[in-house]
Amino acid sequence: MPSAVNLLKRLLLGRPLRSDRVAETLLPKRLALPIFASDALSSVTYATQEILLILSIGGIALLHLTPWVALAVVVLLAVVVASYRQVVHAYPSGGGSYEVVVRNLGRDPSLVVAAALMVDYVMTVAVSVAAGVDNVVSAVPQLYPHRVWLAVGVLVLLMAMNLRGARESGRAFAVPTYLFVVALGLTIVVGLVQLAAGNPPVAESAGWTIRPEEVDITGVAFVFLLLRAFASGCTALTGVEAISNGVPAFQRPKAANAGRTLVIMGILAIFLFSGVTALSMIAQVRVAEDPCDLIGFPTDCHSTGQRTVIAQVAAAVFGSGSVLFYVVQAGAALILLLAANTAFNGFPTLASLLAQRRYLPRQLHTRGDRLAHSNGIVLLGLVAIALIAAFEGSVTALIQLYIIGVFTSFTLSQIGMVKHWNTALADADRAERHRIHGNRLINAVGAVLTATVLVVVLATKFTHGAYLVVIAIPVLFALMRGIHRYYGDVRRELEPEPGDVALPSRVHSVVLVSTLHKPTLRALAFARANRPDTLTALTVNVDEVDTEVLRREWDRQGIETPLKVVESPYREITRPVIDYIKRIRRAGPRDLVCVYIPEYVAGRWWENLLHNQSSLRLTWRLRFEPGVLVVSVPWQLDSSHRRQVDRADRAPGHARRGITPPD
Amino acid sequence: MPSAVNLLKRLLLGRPLRSDRVAETLLPKRLALPIFASDALSSVTYATQEILLILSIGGIALLHLTPWVALAVVVLLAVVVASYRQVVHAYPSGGGSYEVVVRNLGRDPSLVVAAALMVDYVMTVAVSVAAGVDNVVSAVPQLYPHRVWLAVGVLVLLMAMNLRGARESGRAFAVPTYLFVVALGLTIVVGLVQLAAGNPPVAESAGWTIRPEEVDITGVAFVFLLLRAFASGCTALTGVEAISNGVPAFQRPKAANAGRTLVIMGILAIFLFSGVTALSMIAQVRVAEDPCDLIGFPTDCHSTGQRTVIAQVAAAVFGSGSVLFYVVQAGAALILLLAANTAFNGFPTLASLLAQRRYLPRQLHTRGDRLAHSNGIVLLGLVAIALIAAFEGSVTALIQLYIIGVFTSFTLSQIGMVKHWNTALADADRAERHRIHGNRLINAVGAVLTATVLVVVLATKFTHGAYLVVIAIPVLFALMRGIHRYYGDVRRELEPEPGDVALPSRVHSVVLVSTLHKPTLRALAFARANRPDTLTALTVNVDEVDTEVLRREWDRQGIETPLKVVESPYREITRPVIDYIKRIRRAGPRDLVCVYIPEYVAGRWWENLLHNQSSLRLTWRLRFEPGVLVVSVPWQLDSSHRRQVDRADRAPGHARRGITPPD
Repeated sequence: MPSAVNLLKRLLLGRPLRSDRVAETLLPKRLALPIFASDALSSVTYATQEILLILSIGGIALLHLTPWVALAVVVLLAVVVASYRQVVHAYPSGGGSYEVVVRNLGRDPSLVVAAALMVDYVMTVAVSVAAGVDNVVSAVPQLYPHRVWLAVGVLVLLMAMNLRGARESGRAFAVPTYLFVVALGLTIVVGLVQLAAGNPPVAESAGWTIRPEEVDITGVAFVFLLLRAFASGCTALTGVEAISNGVPAFQRPKAANAGRTLVIMGILAIFLFSGVTALSMIAQVRVAEDPCDLIGFPTDCHSTGQRTVIAQVAAAVFGSGSVLFYVVQAGAALILLLAANTAFNGFPTLASLLAQRRYLPRQLHTRGDRLAHSNGIVLLGLVAIALIAAFEGSVTALIQLYIIGVFTSFTLSQIGMVKHWNTALADADRAERHRIHGNRLINAVGAVLTATVLVVVLATKFTHGAYLVVIAIPVLFALMRGIHRYYGDVRRELEPEPGDVALPSRVHSVVLVSTLHKPTLRALAFARANRPDTLTALTVNVDEVDTEVLRREWDRQGIETPLKVVESPYREITRPVIDYIKRIRRAGPRDLVCVYIPEYVAGRWWENLLHNQSSLRLTWRLRFEPGVLVVSVPWQLDSSHRRQVDRADRAPGHARRGITPPD
Repeated sequence: MPSAVNLLKRLLLGRPLRSDRVAETLLPKRLALPIFASDALSSVTYATQEILLILSIGGIALLHLTPWVALAVVVLLAVVVASYRQVVHAYPSGGGSYEVVVRNLGRDPSLVVAAALMVDYVMTVAVSVAAGVDNVVSAVPQLYPHRVWLAVGVLVLLMAMNLRGARESGRAFAVPTYLFVVALGLTIVVGLVQLAAGNPPVAESAGWTIRPEEVDITGVAFVFLLLRAFASGCTALTGVEAISNGVPAFQRPKAANAGRTLVIMGILAIFLFSGVTALSMIAQVRVAEDPCDLIGFPTDCHSTGQRTVIAQVAAAVFGSGSVLFYVVQAGAALILLLAANTAFNGFPTLASLLAQRRYLPRQLHTRGDRLAHSNGIVLLGLVAIALIAAFEGSVTALIQLYIIGVFTSFTLSQIGMVKHWNTALADADRAERHRIHGNRLINAVGAVLTATVLVVVLATKFTHGAYLVVIAIPVLFALMRGIHRYYGDVRRELEPEPGDVALPSRVHSVVLVSTLHKPTLRALAFARANRPDTLTALTVNVDEVDTEVLRREWDRQGIETPLKVVESPYREITRPVIDYIKRIRRAGPRDLVCVYIPEYVAGRWWENLLHNQSSLRLTWRLRFEPGVLVVSVPWQLDSSHRRQVDRADRAPGHARRGITPPD
């Protein structure tokens, strides 16, 4: 089995990379943009739609407010991009928000940011994949019933690609991002030209009306609805921080390249988001949370979904069956995959950093076969799959859980940056002071704005699912603190002290015997080779007849080592052996007991079903006895060689790694 | 966790029994009858119904043939009982059909019987539990939608009871069997008295007609249908052989007591089967495979089931809501549980016998905590649950798979008995020869009749599901032969030969080091205590910085043992260590290499998630290297003591077994 798993792993993941090839995986800007900016750019595919969905609660009457909500989002986006440009320059080591906070605000706030970022990464993957599938379904409606499975399949593919390593993903993903930006940009330009030519695009849903929900939307409720629409539109800001977490992956000068990439990304995001929002107004796109609220919806509203806003806009501009429509949809679907991929770059790096600092299990710091942090990738993928399954792949349901994490880390990192500039002010000359004052202002504005949005998001989304995140972040926080405390305790417990190295006074070897065959004889010979002070062959009398046969055979073969029989009235194996060993230990508390257990090693998995596994249980139990060594004496059955040859033959890449087959 | 599992096990299964209490579990006739005869007696609850279901294919026109079919079944039953009475006397060791065949016909036929019997036991459990649930549902129709879960629950309960041991099941089950026999006997007597009094019982379905299936039922097809009805009626014979498998559980004189119990059982079975069949004719019970074929069926035929024949007869005689009706139904349900219980007695005994002779995995010969063969019980229960789930608890569907196994073992054992008497004739005096001739005649008639029935069953049931059994029996046969061959091969491979006991020339100890802490120092001390010829501390250079820290710490603490660093360009642990050890082995092929691996032992399961488990992989891989011993040096973290105290406190029964808590 493991050899087949190995083969599969190699086929999916390719050859392992040598450590000294780490430097090769650095990214030029043209590759870094698609990898790290895709998250922010892809938000364009759903941000407008989420604003429209909230405003539609009041029917079509409130849709005219869309541009104002979008404008607020654009202003916020510009401020956040400016703020993070400063983070990239001030902290180019790739710690991003986390590093800013840990350096300036201390441990506990940094763990809050870490928890928020982890939630954020998970949600990026889940939302992006779900939205990507929605756009595929908008182009190919027949896939609607299979969309959850489609999303799961895409996630598995993403995991496999990322387990192959960063560089290869970058290349494979660059083309589609540029495709998306160009295709959507073209849509916006053509749409605006059509408008200017007096022939504005008209969406398929332009004629429909929306049944308003029976809720009060006057006075305070109206303001609340507007704020909720704004909070939903803020999904356009997700992913802006990704570049600040990826600075070390940039080519030198890292910070400058990263900063420039961030600004390009900001401009593109604002252009695309504004353009899509404008076109959706021009073409009079209508969407509702439940398609059954759409009066005019042509097919059965229970078994089909609405097309995404992007799809409706592209169809209005280019025509529903046109090649360019499909290009836009393919671009949207692919950039959303890229966005998910951003998280697959960011999450394992963050987890590894936290694991190195002993806030997460150290398995997350283990570098895997292809320089990627395999365990983090797998963990992220599995949690995202679980979320997609739990929310049946609904973008609107998932998005409620999304932006709290994002704005928590935004806010804390901006506060951290303000503190950073305060510290910098202390030992700065006059010219610098002026510059620093300016920088501090940007971050201060960012902090105030993002904190305000965080409060708005919390207030408007809490009951719509965001409460789950409000629970998850403190749980993660407590978990990380607990893990840290645990590692600290263990480390203190294991700190060497004088006197620890005392040699045991005597060594007692005990060989466990069930029948007299080659494995037993080998175990006896190996035990004797270690020259113990005493050597005993121990058997448990579970069956009188078997024991008598063994005793007679022992005498017949003239084996020097005495055979000790312990009784077992309850036919247990483990308990009598443990009791016997405890008696030895009690007689000489500073003595060492070596327990030799003969074991069969079989080459085929089913053979293990045919051998009694009682030794496993005993081995497990003996680990809890101090001063006892468990020595397993493997006997390789003929079939085990077959297996070794198999492995050597099958594993690809061994030859070029200079590994010779076992002799 | 294991301590909680232990507690649960003790609560469900009770205290373990001492080996020397085996004798106490022998059964007197009054307890043996309910345990071993329940299978045969319980068949009465469905045998009549199965005949009616087949004849109903021709509508109500053919129902007048029921008594003739039943008569044929009764004759066969009498012959088989007489045959098995001879088996019990000739082979009182409890091997039953299997032993008769292995002694007289040789290995391969005996394995066919063994396979047939195993299938038979599984089907007994599945059919009996399904039929029991049907009778419960007949009394409480509200349970109809939950019948599969009910059946699974019952099976789990049966497993638990049998894991407690044979004696206690006998006591708990005696009352219901007698209840069933008395209650159903009373029904028959009262029904016949009512008939004699000119007031015959009338079933609720008496007025319904049956829509005949659109098949030809003239000429050959008519004969075929009759034979199929007869084959279905032969389910009344299932379980007759159970007593022959249980002779050793009887009190002395075992054979005589078992023979007498068999005859009592035969008389009861014939009386009850004939009575139920007669009453079903008198009361004009109507059943059909699909209730929708019943014209007059009062409720929705898709969501409700028919009442069983037993239930309809009891309702006709006593009235549907009467106390006695419920008593009959309770009796029927309970005796069917008892029938399932028979298999839980028989299957593990057979499996243990086969495992002892190395035809099945030896785990099936391990005696468990309460003298029962736990693994066999669990295996049987799980397969039966799978069958019930697969066939959605339908008795009629399951019963198609039932009697092929039964009649295969009937036929082969009767042929074996004929051969037994032939052998006995060789050295018998004149008086004996006469008796033996008579005995041989009985078994010969039995053989011919059961062989004929086997052919009939195969022909009439093959396409209705019996083909599954026709596949299963050869598969089991081949599996058992394969297992036997495998054990033979391994035994030959492990047979000690002269020269095997040679001591290794030199012992090389290698201590694996990742960081310098107490576990490492302990491993070094323990390795040194074994006085190896060479001692090396080995570390794998996965991370340059970590390795450098280790090297410096090693020097600082002045550790004598040299630290050997092996490179690992691919950041693997396993491969470089294996390569290093292979080099040692190549330099001295007769040398022994002891690999010491420091390990943490934690008391709480989640702690294992926080420690790197790479040593497990290495340990597994090292087992395949000849001449290598893996020595795990456990370091008991403080939490591990907590666990030990827990276990000692919690496990019930330790005090009365004289086991003191660990110090």
